[in-house]
Amino acid sequence: MSDTKDRLVVAALNLLRQSGLAGAGINNVVDVSGAPKGSVYHFFPGGKHDLVASALAESERQVGDGLRKMFGTSAHLAAKVHDLFSATASTLESTGFTKSCPVGAVTLDLVSESEHLRHVCGAIFDTWRDIVAEGLTEVPQATRREVAELVLATLEGAMILARARASKDPLLCAGGWLADALQSRFPVPHRTAARPRTPLRRRPRSAS
Amino acid sequence: MSDTKDRLVVAALNLLRQSGLAGAGINNVVDVSGAPKGSVYHFFPGGKHDLVASALAESERQVGDGLRKMFGTSAHLAAKVHDLFSATASTLESTGFTKSCPVGAVTLDLVSESEHLRHVCGAIFDTWRDIVAEGLTEVPQATRREVAELVLATLEGAMILARARASKDPLLCAGGWLADALQSRFPVPHRTAARPRTPLRRRPRSAS
Repeated sequence: MSDTKDRLVVAALNLLRQSGLAGAGINNVVDVSGAPKGSVYHFFPGGKHDLVASALAESERQVGDGLRKMFGTSAHLAAKVHDLFSATASTLESTGFTKSCPVGAVTLDLVSESEHLRHVCGAIFDTWRDIVAEGLTEVPQATRREVAELVLATLEGAMILARARASKDPLLCAGGWLADALQSRFPVPHRTAARPRTPLRRRPRSAS
Repeated sequence: MSDTKDRLVVAALNLLRQSGLAGAGINNVVDVSGAPKGSVYHFFPGGKHDLVASALAESERQVGDGLRKMFGTSAHLAAKVHDLFSATASTLESTGFTKSCPVGAVTLDLVSESEHLRHVCGAIFDTWRDIVAEGLTEVPQATRREVAELVLATLEGAMILARARASKDPLLCAGGWLADALQSRFPVPHRTAARPRTPLRRRPRSAS
C-alpha cells in the first residue's frame, strides 16, 4: 500500500472508531491524514464509501489477527473470553474511551441506501465470529458458531456501555459473567478444573 | 407535551434509531416532523443537543416500560431473557432492520465534545440495567446488577449484528444461548424445572 493511501485508511479508521460514518467525511479524513484531497479519488474512485470499506477491511484484518492469537490457544473457553474482554477494555482505555469498533459504529449509522456497506459489515462480523468459533473447542461443533455469535454480540454491546460510562467496568463485568456462565454451560474437563487459565498442552499424536 | 414538541421528539427519535447522531440534524428533524423550523429553538433552546436528549429520554421511558413488564413477572430469568431478545428481534424486523437502539447509536457517534450527551446515555443504560437487575430474582442480590449488565450488553451488541445481517437470527441466537448459559449458572429450582416458561404464581402471604 502506498504511504498516502495508507495514511488515508488509518485516518478514516480512527475517525470511524470515534464517531462513526458521519465522522469520516472526505474533508475530515483529508485534514487528519494530511494527504492531498485529490489523492482520495485517485486511490478510492468510489469516494467515501470506497474509503470506508477499505478502513473497515483494515479493522477486519487487525481484529482478526488478535482474535486468531487469542482463540488459537488451548486455554479453556472461559479464559479466552476473559482475555478478549480484558484486552478490549485496555484498548478502549488507551483511547480515553473515545474510540471503539468501527464496524459496530458504521452499522448503527447506516441508512437504507448503504446496502453495500451493510454487506461489508455483515461479512466482517461473519469472519470474526468464525475465528472465535474455531477456538471454542469445548463447545459441540454444531453449535460453535452460535456461541461465538453470543461472544461477539456481548463484546460489541459492552464496548457501547464502556464508552457511555467512560470506564473499563462494563467490559470487565460483562466479559467476566459471560465467561462464568459459559463455564457452567460447558464445564472444564475434570483434570484441568483447578487451573482453567493455564493453556493445556496436547500430547503429540503418534504417527499411525 | 404540545403536539408540535411531541412531533419533533418522535421525528428525532426515529432518525437517531436509524442513523445515529448525524441523522438527527435540525433540518432533517424539521423535514420529517413537518414542524416549523422556529419551533425547534422555541421548545429546545439548546438546539440539537437539547432535542436529542429529549428524544433519548423518550426512549428511556418506552424501553423502561417494556423492561419493567418483562422483568417484573415471576418467570425464570432464562424465560425473561428469551422474551426480551425475541421481542427486540420482532421490533427490529418491523422496521426492516433499519432502526435500533438510539442510545447505542448516539454513544458510538459521540465525539469528545459531547460530554453531556455521554452522561445522558450512561444514565439511561443505568436505568435499564437496574430494571433488569430487579427482575433477576434467581441471582444473588449482590451480583444482580452485574448479570443485568451482561444482559444489556448482549442485547445492544446483538442489535448491531441483526442490523448488519438484516436478520432476526443474531438476536434470537445470542439471546437463546445467553438464556441457556445463565440457566446453567443459576439453575431453575427443581419443582419448576419442567416448565421454566410458565410464570409462577406466588401464594399470597397471610396477613400477620
